[in-house]
Amino acid sequence: MNERHVLPADIERTSMAIIQGELTERGIQVPAGCEAVVQRVIHTTADFDYAKNLCFTPGAVDKGVEALGRGAVLVTDTNMALAGISKPTLKKLGCSAYCYMADEDVARAAVQENTTRADAAMQKAAQLHPGAVFAVGNAPTALFRLEKLIEEGLRPALVIAVPVGFVNVVESKERIFSACEAAGVPVIAAMGRKGGSNVAAAVCNALLYTAANALDPAQRGWKG
Amino acid sequence: MNERHVLPADIERTSMAIIQGELTERGIQVPAGCEAVVQRVIHTTADFDYAKNLCFTPGAVDKGVEALGRGAVLVTDTNMALAGISKPTLKKLGCSAYCYMADEDVARAAVQENTTRADAAMQKAAQLHPGAVFAVGNAPTALFRLEKLIEEGLRPALVIAVPVGFVNVVESKERIFSACEAAGVPVIAAMGRKGGSNVAAAVCNALLYTAANALDPAQRGWKG
Repeated sequence: MNERHVLPADIERTSMAIIQGELTERGIQVPAGCEAVVQRVIHTTADFDYAKNLCFTPGAVDKGVEALGRGAVLVTDTNMALAGISKPTLKKLGCSAYCYMADEDVARAAVQENTTRADAAMQKAAQLHPGAVFAVGNAPTALFRLEKLIEEGLRPALVIAVPVGFVNVVESKERIFSACEAAGVPVIAAMGRKGGSNVAAAVCNALLYTAANALDPAQRGWKG
Repeated sequence: MNERHVLPADIERTSMAIIQGELTERGIQVPAGCEAVVQRVIHTTADFDYAKNLCFTPGAVDKGVEALGRGAVLVTDTNMALAGISKPTLKKLGCSAYCYMADEDVARAAVQENTTRADAAMQKAAQLHPGAVFAVGNAPTALFRLEKLIEEGLRPALVIAVPVGFVNVVESKERIFSACEAAGVPVIAAMGRKGGSNVAAAVCNALLYTAANALDPAQRGWKG
């Protein structure tokens, strides 16, 4: 066995071929244009449930890719998701990414308003970056805040709604999906209980790599 | 609906009760002493497959908890896993956590030795912290290196072997499990394809919270 001499980019190509092969075997047809996102989430989780759980408003992937291609800001609800986003690809596209969960003013605002830090962090992010791509992988309360802000007129480039969990999570994703549909805001959501910071990062990376490949078709994106 | 006034600690307790209830409904008996780890991984993924995938050598949880209770070092193979580990709980226990993947000397060593950064990062970590808890959530090559080091005499406090993926991943986990068993090194592994940086962080946090609760039984650990 000679595993250490296999290049990560080769492993990624092989993995994606296996994933696509198994999707075909299982008779799962991923919506056109959504393949890169679905494949990368399965690559991140080894969980084919996401082929069915992931829902997209029409053109959501293209709109996310387009926004990142012109240097949009990415906002996440956890530092773990932020850590998982490809920094070289952000740099190549002139994009930047932020998570405000650990900020002192966010902690203070959460106490003052009797709410969660995730909620307060989204309020801060929406003020600073109203047209950002918002990626939520952990906190339903972040989605409830985004829902309210969208109803009040916020127009993000894209909402990625993929928290994981057992309490308020399923509802938070159904509600943000409806709110985004009603407002014409593109949304990608993992319906049901599953999701997570790793899934949020995977969706972001799929969009970033697609945007970077559009700049330079010879470039293949992979998680380094 | 009044989601924003539910405290995170209450949500966590409710989630854990739902998870335990569904494990019972499904007739799944988690090995004694392993409940906290299994429940937290399901909490992180909403994926009950982990109740079956997670394998433990006898006493592995207790040995990990004991090591962290006396301030052991944690080593991860990704900055994403590192970002997911509870910093307040590390601090309370006097523990520290490191990931060397992004270090310049690791990048240089990987090129010089024609290997992966994950492999080189494990070599650096093993030199600096030979008795650490090693948590691998991404790179099979990190596990192949640990396997070799253990065969050469390295004795970590615990190996957490939970990479995700489609190439070399399943084998890497089977091999490290056997190598650890043979050497008497405690190991917790997610067999099969599933795992990830989020799973690595969840296992670490389950052990850290258990160790912290042993210090102070009134304290309840939760991801803040």
